Amino acid sequence: MTMTEQPSAAMNWSTENCTISRTMEILGDKWTFHVLREVFVGVRRFEDIRSRAGIPRQVLTERLAALIERGLIRRHPYRLPGQRERSEYRLTQAGLDLYPVLVAMIQWADQYLPLDDGPPLIPTHRGDCGGKVSVALQCDGGHEPTPREVSLQPGPGAKPRS
Amino acid sequence: MTMTEQPSAAMNWSTENCTISRTMEILGDKWTFHVLREVFVGVRRFEDIRSRAGIPRQVLTERLAALIERGLIRRHPYRLPGQRERSEYRLTQAGLDLYPVLVAMIQWADQYLPLDDGPPLIPTHRGDCGGKVSVALQCDGGHEPTPREVSLQPGPGAKPRS
Repeated sequence: MTMTEQPSAAMNWSTENCTISRTMEILGDKWTFHVLREVFVGVRRFEDIRSRAGIPRQVLTERLAALIERGLIRRHPYRLPGQRERSEYRLTQAGLDLYPVLVAMIQWADQYLPLDDGPPLIPTHRGDCGGKVSVALQCDGGHEPTPREVSLQPGPGAKPRS
Repeated sequence: MTMTEQPSAAMNWSTENCTISRTMEILGDKWTFHVLREVFVGVRRFEDIRSRAGIPRQVLTERLAALIERGLIRRHPYRLPGQRERSEYRLTQAGLDLYPVLVAMIQWADQYLPLDDGPPLIPTHRGDCGGKVSVALQCDGGHEPTPREVSLQPGPGAKPRS
């Protein structure tokens, strides 16, 4: 049993501009996350996203607009024979750069929330390689620290608690 | 403009057991995520978590119980001089293994949601190294694919849509 211990240094810092919270404000919305997932697996059209993810039409319209506004997806016009021009939704570079977050989540879930039949979704290196993709922790010093060797330290943007 | 294009193969698969959704059911809850963040930065006591994260007492009690139930944190007893025994909350191995998810989020936010003063939170290799920690995509084939070279493919657990 710990008898006494110093309180965490983090107690001195504000949570107000927390990096993780700011990311979760975007990703943590259930419908937003479902929309992003669809675009990531290549489902790009309004009707397809709506039917596969089971999102109410009005909610989908709002979430797509918000994701475009935040720069994570962009519209790309297409036209089926005999129909009017419509938009598909594609990931921007900022959206694509969420891949490490998704892959890290999939990796964690495959270990700690496994399904009897095996993983439903496998991040894969496209093309000839076809290798399974994972993420690994690495540091500036050239090491590959384990999670226990990592700590979250205040950076220049950390604000003292008032 | 794309004239016609094959619908995504993902349209054939059910979203019902989606790996990403199952992870977001845990992480996507705003308060759960705030609690986890506190434990990650080393804030481990009920009163400290409550005051720093601004979580209502009853909500914190519930979220801590759920995180223990899911195996992400565990109780560790401590006693301050002259007081009754209390519990701190520490990450289990399953909780610690969320580090790649957090680091990936921080890395993305530092690039796409930067703050004027610089990052508030820097994942750091503990001890002598002190290097900044990041995550990188890698594959079984020994490559480091860019996000554009990654795709999410159905695995053995993928279920056809009904």
